Amino acid sequence: MRIVIALGGNALLHRGEALSAENQRANVKIAAAALAPLALEHHLVITHGNGPQVGLLALQDSASTEGVHYPLDILDAESEGMIGYLIEQEISNLLPAGHRCATLLTQTEVDPHDPAFQNPTKPIGPVYEHAEAQQLSEQRGWSIAPDGDFFRRVVPSPSPQRILEMGVIELLVERQVIVICAGGGGIPVVRRKDGQIVGVEAVIDKDSASSLLARELGADALVMLTDVEAVYQGWGEADARALHRISARDMRQLTFAPGSMGPKVAAACEFVEQTGGFAGIGQLQDACAILTGEAGTVITR
Amino acid sequence: MRIVIALGGNALLHRGEALSAENQRANVKIAAAALAPLALEHHLVITHGNGPQVGLLALQDSASTEGVHYPLDILDAESEGMIGYLIEQEISNLLPAGHRCATLLTQTEVDPHDPAFQNPTKPIGPVYEHAEAQQLSEQRGWSIAPDGDFFRRVVPSPSPQRILEMGVIELLVERQVIVICAGGGGIPVVRRKDGQIVGVEAVIDKDSASSLLARELGADALVMLTDVEAVYQGWGEADARALHRISARDMRQLTFAPGSMGPKVAAACEFVEQTGGFAGIGQLQDACAILTGEAGTVITR
Repeated sequence: MRIVIALGGNALLHRGEALSAENQRANVKIAAAALAPLALEHHLVITHGNGPQVGLLALQDSASTEGVHYPLDILDAESEGMIGYLIEQEISNLLPAGHRCATLLTQTEVDPHDPAFQNPTKPIGPVYEHAEAQQLSEQRGWSIAPDGDFFRRVVPSPSPQRILEMGVIELLVERQVIVICAGGGGIPVVRRKDGQIVGVEAVIDKDSASSLLARELGADALVMLTDVEAVYQGWGEADARALHRISARDMRQLTFAPGSMGPKVAAACEFVEQTGGFAGIGQLQDACAILTGEAGTVITR
Repeated sequence: MRIVIALGGNALLHRGEALSAENQRANVKIAAAALAPLALEHHLVITHGNGPQVGLLALQDSASTEGVHYPLDILDAESEGMIGYLIEQEISNLLPAGHRCATLLTQTEVDPHDPAFQNPTKPIGPVYEHAEAQQLSEQRGWSIAPDGDFFRRVVPSPSPQRILEMGVIELLVERQVIVICAGGGGIPVVRRKDGQIVGVEAVIDKDSASSLLARELGADALVMLTDVEAVYQGWGEADARALHRISARDMRQLTFAPGSMGPKVAAACEFVEQTGGFAGIGQLQDACAILTGEAGTVITR
């Protein structure tokens, strides 16, 4: 099978853990151990989140005394390098010689008229006191929004339309190369009126981009791995129950938290509705069992 | 022809320029304009330096108040993402639809017994007062060396032995994809006794890695682009003269500055001696003319 695996941010960095190189590598090792058996049997394309990493880069950039500040598209590209490298190295270490693995920088085109650009909602980088946030907003054109007692920069999260490197990804998958791509949902770019592609200050939802990738690739399955064992109906309530096997149509009737499970469920349904494939959501260590329907939540037509 | 083009650090960031995103993008645009005509006629593999970029990342990392510090292999991976993204985007913008471009994370294997590990010489990151340098050396196991009135961290620069992603690069070149890879000479890794590949704190010479890449790829030409128009015999002296066409054997008789032209000349000779191809060294805007022998220095058998 052709399978797109999306590694959630919480699968790569456990909640509350320091964002050290050691912690990231330790978590990537666990992810690689979960995925290596699948790589022996299937054609894998691996995507990943980058929220904490791009947050750290934005924080270091903000604190930089060098007087140079980098836009989000470049920080995104840096995070694709950092995380892709760790995943490629750790998964390659677990596979027999002859298996090939490639980490591809990926640009994801969004619509410059996406309403998200009028309504930035995604917080990024450090928190600031109000006065400082106001000043940064004026100096650097940032949108800011309250976050508890502080303020944070917020950026648009437009919907992914096209993955620019799709042809190359397809070519590599056909040739049995394990591809790591679309990190952080891909580097957000728009096509200007003059036809030129340029980076934009935005953040793309990784699950939505992974669903687009899986659809364009004609994947048989889209599996989103995180740190909860299944999708729950009534999460946080006394009568919460795990969903094991459910149709996209039934799933669409339920409501989920917009920031966490919501995007995963929407990405899964979109993939299932538009292809003949199935989607799975569950925890990292259950990757194999999710594919055989023995763990996690499986969404089918 | 199959051509490996190595973009020098000085071609991507002019001496004395601030390392801003804007300056980098402006220089990458100039580089892309020089390379796009070649990409229409030849199969290009583009490599690039990362000295200033990895220096900035090391400086930001050093100054980080988050208490997390990243090793050089990870900073290298970040810089491959950052620079590769800019090159891919700008060159793609100049090419007609249908041309495909891919930026590949690249690991370069070095020998753990390379004598460079006993004798770190390559300065990296910011300068420190002696006491602070000493403290960092003790805290983080750094080698330090004097740099004028200050001290700097120095790291080994071992010789590149193997490019781990070679098979994927070959596959993409065969399919007419323009490949951007081996940024900064590639991320330095060693194979441990247990067979595992792990990153090391080192810096690989980009020209040496580009020469290895060109040899393994069976390239017809290796072109190293920088900000001087040719290789000079007696550089800096009154009777200095530009070398236009010279054999590798004659080139080997001359001596060049170890830090700048020396590695380029050595990389060129190695490529020429081991293949039927030719090497060129010259300035960025002469890229086409170097290939036709009308500019720069051409080194042949």
